[in-house]
Amino acid sequence: VRLAIINPTTTAAFASKNLEAAERVAAAGTEILSVTVASGPPSIEDHLDEAVAAVAIVEEIQRLEAQAVNAYVIACFGDPGIWAAREITDAPVIGIAEAAFHAVTIVATHFSVVTTLGRTRVMCEHLLHIFGFAHRCRRIRAVEVEVLALEDTGLVTFNAIEEECRKALDEDGSDALVLGCAGMADLSVRLQDRLGVPVIDGVASGVKLVESLVALGYGTSKRGDLAAPLPKTYSGRFAFLSPTRAYQG
Amino acid sequence: VRLAIINPTTTAAFASKNLEAAERVAAAGTEILSVTVASGPPSIEDHLDEAVAAVAIVEEIQRLEAQAVNAYVIACFGDPGIWAAREITDAPVIGIAEAAFHAVTIVATHFSVVTTLGRTRVMCEHLLHIFGFAHRCRRIRAVEVEVLALEDTGLVTFNAIEEECRKALDEDGSDALVLGCAGMADLSVRLQDRLGVPVIDGVASGVKLVESLVALGYGTSKRGDLAAPLPKTYSGRFAFLSPTRAYQG
Amino acid sequence: VRLAIINPTTTAAFASKNLEAAERVAAAGTEILSVTVASGPPSIEDHLDEAVAAVAIVEEIQRLEAQAVNAYVIACFGDPGIWAAREITDAPVIGIAEAAFHAVTIVATHFSVVTTLGRTRVMCEHLLHIFGFAHRCRRIRAVEVEVLALEDTGLVTFNAIEEECRKALDEDGSDALVLGCAGMADLSVRLQDRLGVPVIDGVASGVKLVESLVALGYGTSKRGDLAAPLPKTYSGRFAFLSPTRAYQG
Amino acid sequence: VRLAIINPTTTAAFASKNLEAAERVAAAGTEILSVTVASGPPSIEDHLDEAVAAVAIVEEIQRLEAQAVNAYVIACFGDPGIWAAREITDAPVIGIAEAAFHAVTIVATHFSVVTTLGRTRVMCEHLLHIFGFAHRCRRIRAVEVEVLALEDTGLVTFNAIEEECRKALDEDGSDALVLGCAGMADLSVRLQDRLGVPVIDGVASGVKLVESLVALGYGTSKRGDLAAPLPKTYSGRFAFLSPTRAYQG
Amino acid sequence: VRLAIINPTTTAAFASKNLEAAERVAAAGTEILSVTVASGPPSIEDHLDEAVAAVAIVEEIQRLEAQAVNAYVIACFGDPGIWAAREITDAPVIGIAEAAFHAVTIVATHFSVVTTLGRTRVMCEHLLHIFGFAHRCRRIRAVEVEVLALEDTGLVTFNAIEEECRKALDEDGSDALVLGCAGMADLSVRLQDRLGVPVIDGVASGVKLVESLVALGYGTSKRGDLAAPLPKTYSGRFAFLSPTRAYQG
Amino acid sequence: VRLAIINPTTTAAFASKNLEAAERVAAAGTEILSVTVASGPPSIEDHLDEAVAAVAIVEEIQRLEAQAVNAYVIACFGDPGIWAAREITDAPVIGIAEAAFHAVTIVATHFSVVTTLGRTRVMCEHLLHIFGFAHRCRRIRAVEVEVLALEDTGLVTFNAIEEECRKALDEDGSDALVLGCAGMADLSVRLQDRLGVPVIDGVASGVKLVESLVALGYGTSKRGDLAAPLPKTYSGRFAFLSPTRAYQG
Repeated sequence: VRLAIINPTTTAAFASKNLEAAERVAAAGTEILSVTVASGPPSIEDHLDEAVAAVAIVEEIQRLEAQAVNAYVIACFGDPGIWAAREITDAPVIGIAEAAFHAVTIVATHFSVVTTLGRTRVMCEHLLHIFGFAHRCRRIRAVEVEVLALEDTGLVTFNAIEEECRKALDEDGSDALVLGCAGMADLSVRLQDRLGVPVIDGVASGVKLVESLVALGYGTSKRGDLAAPLPKTYSGRFAFLSPTRAYQG
Repeated sequence: VRLAIINPTTTAAFASKNLEAAERVAAAGTEILSVTVASGPPSIEDHLDEAVAAVAIVEEIQRLEAQAVNAYVIACFGDPGIWAAREITDAPVIGIAEAAFHAVTIVATHFSVVTTLGRTRVMCEHLLHIFGFAHRCRRIRAVEVEVLALEDTGLVTFNAIEEECRKALDEDGSDALVLGCAGMADLSVRLQDRLGVPVIDGVASGVKLVESLVALGYGTSKRGDLAAPLPKTYSGRFAFLSPTRAYQG
Repeated sequence: VRLAIINPTTTAAFASKNLEAAERVAAAGTEILSVTVASGPPSIEDHLDEAVAAVAIVEEIQRLEAQAVNAYVIACFGDPGIWAAREITDAPVIGIAEAAFHAVTIVATHFSVVTTLGRTRVMCEHLLHIFGFAHRCRRIRAVEVEVLALEDTGLVTFNAIEEECRKALDEDGSDALVLGCAGMADLSVRLQDRLGVPVIDGVASGVKLVESLVALGYGTSKRGDLAAPLPKTYSGRFAFLSPTRAYQG
Repeated sequence: VRLAIINPTTTAAFASKNLEAAERVAAAGTEILSVTVASGPPSIEDHLDEAVAAVAIVEEIQRLEAQAVNAYVIACFGDPGIWAAREITDAPVIGIAEAAFHAVTIVATHFSVVTTLGRTRVMCEHLLHIFGFAHRCRRIRAVEVEVLALEDTGLVTFNAIEEECRKALDEDGSDALVLGCAGMADLSVRLQDRLGVPVIDGVASGVKLVESLVALGYGTSKRGDLAAPLPKTYSGRFAFLSPTRAYQG
Repeated sequence: VRLAIINPTTTAAFASKNLEAAERVAAAGTEILSVTVASGPPSIEDHLDEAVAAVAIVEEIQRLEAQAVNAYVIACFGDPGIWAAREITDAPVIGIAEAAFHAVTIVATHFSVVTTLGRTRVMCEHLLHIFGFAHRCRRIRAVEVEVLALEDTGLVTFNAIEEECRKALDEDGSDALVLGCAGMADLSVRLQDRLGVPVIDGVASGVKLVESLVALGYGTSKRGDLAAPLPKTYSGRFAFLSPTRAYQG
Repeated sequence: VRLAIINPTTTAAFASKNLEAAERVAAAGTEILSVTVASGPPSIEDHLDEAVAAVAIVEEIQRLEAQAVNAYVIACFGDPGIWAAREITDAPVIGIAEAAFHAVTIVATHFSVVTTLGRTRVMCEHLLHIFGFAHRCRRIRAVEVEVLALEDTGLVTFNAIEEECRKALDEDGSDALVLGCAGMADLSVRLQDRLGVPVIDGVASGVKLVESLVALGYGTSKRGDLAAPLPKTYSGRFAFLSPTRAYQG
């Protein structure tokens, strides 16, 4: 399996975290490419960041398709561009929010999400709604820390996250936690050790899920809703993304 | 009111249709700008088209903000980029799908959507889900005609659309129709005359809705979920969209 | 446009508030009739009040139909008689709760309602459920003030409402507010100025929505669910409402 | 138990059917009053009929409260006035649609409704939504027969109903049926015999449900949402319904 | 009516409580059998207890079918084995959670559940979800008392339950209460007297509901989902349950 | 990883199919135990079969816990006993329905299920409801073939299944398929080759999912809802399952 984790921010530190999280869990035969998009926002914290990141991700996947990549993880908790990404490849693609939701609902009946800024809650809610896990999520909690503060997570931030996790267990009726940011990928093991409940990191979860799908022989359905984009010529700044030739397998 | 209708495709014919639809219904004091994005797909029929269009729309709104525009309509039935658009302005913004859903649910208890390609159904379903109108929509029907066939709608296409509308009334238990594409904006009056039920065009509906919101003094909430994007520096291709200075009112 | 706002209480002060709210926002060509029902409760605060008001509204619309009215707003936040009203006219009809929900969901992702008595919460919940906005409403808050206290809103009541609004913003995760009573129509501008978020008044919103529908050429569908009532002879006290001749266009 | 079945139409034949249906199943100690409203529509087939019937029912219950009635059944499948009725008495009150839904979901996982006119479907859908049984109902089927045709159901109508019931079993994946009109109360036994599945009549079901609640000692909660209406003076035509003295137990 | 209440625990005290609760409300002609399963857990507080109890219940019903029982109540608030039980008899069968939900939603718009251990909440949530009452239940509250503490409820436990009931009324916006354990069957009358709102006991409610269904002539549908189990030979420890001959009426 | 696939029927052929399906996809380091329950039904096709199988599964897991198994798959599409199973181990446990739903929703937006008997549809619907995938499933189709006909699937049965799959693609608006029975585990590759869309087998999917969870370090949460069963002594036939000593890790 040749698996690409796409860091849709331009902050390289997150790609390092992704790689580390992936290598800890990847199967022997899995080759991990941890790539950072060429263009875009340094962190993804609002709808504008997400909209821009979605196109940056598409560009990256278009490039990676030529390198025989056969599994993709989008390493941002808003799963930006997930549907477009699934159109332009027949490899399995997952975002880390959806990955975390799949993982956590197998090991607990209800969970809380602990994320960075409160304003990202609405994106998480939209995903829970579309994916169907809304009734399994008791609450989305924010520590009100900007994503870049997680570039190299210090003790103060770690403590704030741990405290919010403990509140989730005490107050929400949740029995497992989901970390709501790729920048927290390196914290899940430590938090799980301290809290004694599953603390889900979507990056590692995503790696195992798409790796599994490849082993199972299941790729993105190319019939109907996620079929390759219709060939057409894009204009101007987006000409380079034109699905004229690229995606028709 | 200075109202911009953004045609998020690069096909100018759609902007003409939008303008015509808007002028038919706009209030005396409303100035309509019908603008076409500089870059992007010629038509929007899949998730990739939508992802690209979302950024093209954002770029356009960023530009229009400098021209004292105080109401926006996104003239594509997938409402691409709607949340990002709402972040970068305090003017009201609406997509034509949401606009049509608001209008139709006031004049009928249940409706059907008649759209172009079947593969766009999933986008419509996601919107119905998020906006809350799923239980009011009996069925989404596709005539399986590409969007560009609506550039200048001929009789064959018109007849196919009318036939699908009649089926919706006869088979779905719907009492009103929503046209699922900005390219059908010029057909609603004619269809309504022939069918005797409300046939909703989202472009005109969107114009009246945002015009109304301006009159009411309600702009996009700048607190919380839709506050201005956090200032940061985007890299590479998207540097020009950096919310560093632009959106901080 | 000849637009009637029906005050379904017998308290004339509310009709004055409605008129003022409407005139502030109505289009140049719109003639506003602010009418008070001849019979019924002085305020609407429970299911019995609503049931009675529904018939009073129907009687009023029956009378107004003869006066070429072509748009109706029902100025009570429980939207009493809305479906019956829509049957007996082909003009667009809206209640102020539904109107407020349409308006607020365009300018914010989530809202709270601030209403009078806690016992009216259940009516609001039923409407949110039927109209589809339940997941957009974070909480319904009551100031526990009787509706007639809003006949001429004093400072104590205003302060109580403002305080509840502030709590909604601080505690509910809402970014906009809906005022849950026609008697609060005169407070929205002042509250919006003080709170800095959209504070939606359903009366003004309703006026703009039905005015828009008239401009758009969309009337209540007369097919199926909302077709004119079947002609029949009512007995006794309700003989005068018999749909024998009146509603068959 | 003194139990009143309220026929909210002015057609006496339905009260006879109600009485017969009730007496077949009532407990030894239950006294049945089958009453017909003094005023209102001869049949209930649309929203206007329902709105009027709601007030007629309230008037009737107000009168019956003085006669020590301690259980009420509203014998119309739209459950008109149900919430107002529950406010003005502390006896248990049920409508025949809700009663049928309670009964059928105990004896089958999924059911279909067979009703009179297609235009009543929307009322049934609203009730299923509010009461929570929407996911248990596979389909609402209409035989397109007016309610008064059931005054004395002939063979043609019976056959049409039976045929629709058979279609429900064959096509809908339903294993039980609900008859969607009080006028069908006399058909359920015969249909059940012929079809071999539960065929639920809401009138008889309602009688047993409220009779049971009385035996259990559970009356309508007089706290909060269904507390007695606030005392106030109604004007004009509705003065007689004023909750000034009547409902304060 | 020959009605069996099955105590799915091996603790005889609960059968006594069930009998007492039933006899207080049963109709004159109803013969109550209060039976305790031969095998299984002494109390039901988790999923394992429930899984085991489900089979114990099935065994008991299999045995009771030979004794002309024609109505069953499963006296555990998790409604264990309800669907299997409904398959193996054509008599009506109800669990006490479902019974309580039916009863409470007729006398109040919203309710809270007060139960024993917090870990049983998830079972209650699953039932609310499947039966459709989730939106009517404001909150599930646990007093964190083990079920066996209710064998002979002392004052301390009673007080804890009453206090939790009062909190439900004060904090949840509920106007009626459901007692979430068969072991609380003897407390409902006392609590209702003290609290002044309906306090629903599922045991008594279940008795009246199935008694009613028998009177109505409605048994479990033997078509489709709940038809008699397919005849087959079970092996090993479960051979005795083989549906080879037993359930084919 | 030591992974047990539990065949909850007593038909050994299904264990062979499970083993084959598992070995095709398992990671190098995974040891597969394909075990058949000692007692129970030969096939699982109704609620009674499921209730019995649930206990048989619990017994088997109890036994396997002593053998250092650290991942479980329950190989029946009704996921019998899933919650009890999760209580009695801290290893991850998955049923094949849930596993299939997780897998299919990553590679397609909507799917259909093709299963054996129509009467199993309701179990599938309950699972879709609880797990949250109901809105992703377009339709559940049955070929009306008994499960044991899949012991050694002949051409006639295969053709019937393939034909139903094709209908699902043509008529349902689904772009992927889920095979609704462990007995179909050997058909998915062949069907996928012929149909050109993902055809999901829950057995293989389950193997990869729990294998992944072990690699990720996520076990079943032992806090709250799925904590080890409370120690107590079961009586009679079920004494051997008493959670007195066994599950307290």
